[in-house]
Amino acid sequence: MSTARKYFDYPGSFEMRRGGSLQKPRIAYETWGELNAARDNAVCIFTGLSPSAHASSSAEDPAPGWWEEIVGPSRPIDTRRLFVVCMNSLGGCFGSTGPASTDPATGKPYRLSFPVLTLEDVATMGREVLLSLGIERLNTLIGPSMGGMTAQAYAAIYPGTYERLLLISTASRSLPFATALRSLQRELIRRDPDWQEGSYGDGRGPITGMRLARKLGMITYRSAEEWEQRFGRERIPEERQSGNPFALDFEVESYLEAHANKFTGQFDPNCYLYLSRASDLFDIAEHGGSVAAGLARIDANRTLVIGVASDMLFPLHQQQELAEGMAAAGREVTFIELPSIQGHDSFLVDMDRFRPPVHDFLADD
Amino acid sequence: MSTARKYFDYPGSFEMRRGGSLQKPRIAYETWGELNAARDNAVCIFTGLSPSAHASSSAEDPAPGWWEEIVGPSRPIDTRRLFVVCMNSLGGCFGSTGPASTDPATGKPYRLSFPVLTLEDVATMGREVLLSLGIERLNTLIGPSMGGMTAQAYAAIYPGTYERLLLISTASRSLPFATALRSLQRELIRRDPDWQEGSYGDGRGPITGMRLARKLGMITYRSAEEWEQRFGRERIPEERQSGNPFALDFEVESYLEAHANKFTGQFDPNCYLYLSRASDLFDIAEHGGSVAAGLARIDANRTLVIGVASDMLFPLHQQQELAEGMAAAGREVTFIELPSIQGHDSFLVDMDRFRPPVHDFLADD
Repeated sequence: MSTARKYFDYPGSFEMRRGGSLQKPRIAYETWGELNAARDNAVCIFTGLSPSAHASSSAEDPAPGWWEEIVGPSRPIDTRRLFVVCMNSLGGCFGSTGPASTDPATGKPYRLSFPVLTLEDVATMGREVLLSLGIERLNTLIGPSMGGMTAQAYAAIYPGTYERLLLISTASRSLPFATALRSLQRELIRRDPDWQEGSYGDGRGPITGMRLARKLGMITYRSAEEWEQRFGRERIPEERQSGNPFALDFEVESYLEAHANKFTGQFDPNCYLYLSRASDLFDIAEHGGSVAAGLARIDANRTLVIGVASDMLFPLHQQQELAEGMAAAGREVTFIELPSIQGHDSFLVDMDRFRPPVHDFLADD
Repeated sequence: MSTARKYFDYPGSFEMRRGGSLQKPRIAYETWGELNAARDNAVCIFTGLSPSAHASSSAEDPAPGWWEEIVGPSRPIDTRRLFVVCMNSLGGCFGSTGPASTDPATGKPYRLSFPVLTLEDVATMGREVLLSLGIERLNTLIGPSMGGMTAQAYAAIYPGTYERLLLISTASRSLPFATALRSLQRELIRRDPDWQEGSYGDGRGPITGMRLARKLGMITYRSAEEWEQRFGRERIPEERQSGNPFALDFEVESYLEAHANKFTGQFDPNCYLYLSRASDLFDIAEHGGSVAAGLARIDANRTLVIGVASDMLFPLHQQQELAEGMAAAGREVTFIELPSIQGHDSFLVDMDRFRPPVHDFLADD
């Protein structure tokens, strides 16, 4: 556990958007930099589905974070002058209350008794964390991927509480191709007999299902073009082949295998199910009756939307829709398409392309 | 079983390309039309992974075939003047010898003792079937999808035995994105405990694994654009929802569920594994040392290559590569891109777009 991790405990019963409540839920977060006297230099980062609050290293926790090259002193989100807050989403398993947490009412893990999770719940808890830190109004609200949906929820629910908005590789809602993939990932976990309707113990759990879901994730987070360049039709050397007729032939299979093995055990399967479904359920149209009305509620003074053409999960036309929707409501919006070939994951790996626009958007006060 | 189905029995030991042999393997096929006296009106269709030999209806079997609108009297592949042969691939489970067939040496099904299958083996057995029908030289060799790889194998192995070549939504070899998807589909089947290392009995078998593999197939055979138009974010009506928090929310999920259920039981899981891997193993570069050299061996007098931009499994640049490779070798090649939005499956469903170019290519003798 990170020594930089701090906790916010909600002081009562938290009512969930789709019904049910949580007693004194906890949110794990980390901060970088200092809140200034005017309290106008705070940046909030909502994360994608799987990251923890550890976006970057710090004196307390020198391990590299998931956005190490973006957040830090002299980096695009410059912690010498900005106070950066990143949280583990409600429903997550890196310190925040989620399905793997103990339900104080029973003394046992929530598991499937956890209420239906929405990204509005994640955003609302995020607001509570920020208020607890003395932040009424954000300098910049940032969200990549699922975090971009959470940021839209936050923006629509709390207009007037943020100056700038940065949305990366995200969408106003899931389209059926992405929903089908996420739904299948969830089914891969649920069909593993070791899932046991969510009641697996601390031991094994649905390891096979998680491995398969992770492989499907890896396939759709990257792009065909990147893999063609990286792997082509490279074969696994003979000495690593097992002789099994359905063992692995190609390097791309070996790569997926290694990544799937690394992921398993890091992430609680039930938390994955809840967060994945929350991504599918999100729809900005629920904030006003249509996508246009929802986007019109978002009143940042300046917005930057970044997308990547090779992203098959959050396709470029969805970032265009965000930018055009906010522009149609009279907001100042910039839309940037980056030619990254790493698909949806580009914002995590193609740092040379992402650093400049993020830097420019935040530098220009 | 189709009453139009005929059988060819190979009269001895058939040596497989990657080692091993089959004793007197059988190929199921159907024919339409009549072979003329000059024996120069024969068309051979190699199929994709899952279809049977029943490409079209006939007097003996009036059930619609998988390419009903393409093959028949007055249809693009006009059986009033062409003699059409379609076979169930070696390794398949619709009448041809495959992993589900009885091994005469043991009296038990081959299952995983079936030798490694290649599309060259499928092509070579195809040649034997054609010779048994008195066809030395084809008027037209046709292959969509995996069948297009089989057709390339046939064309490279038997130059000078075909006049025209029609390749549809296919490729010179699998690229890592498609391989990763197929590999994951195979793993979904193999990880089902009911697969039992391929030794499931006649009963249950890996039904869950087959359903999951089918869903992944459906997702990748179509396109995000088509699904957005068809399903949008349509919800399943309340009365069909089960209350389970991970049951289905969206119509696209319900659609996949229905298709997966329909597929299961139709296709033998081990046959699926063998044919899927054969698709990944195919590489025209094995016929000459490079893709260019392999394609240069294909000596049709006229070739038509058709591709679809929304195909994520056999992307358009792979059909371009085929056409350019054969053109570079001095052949007469036409390349047509169709604006279908149904992805890889377009050749099976977007008949209004596919009929005209297939008709024109075959009409013009």
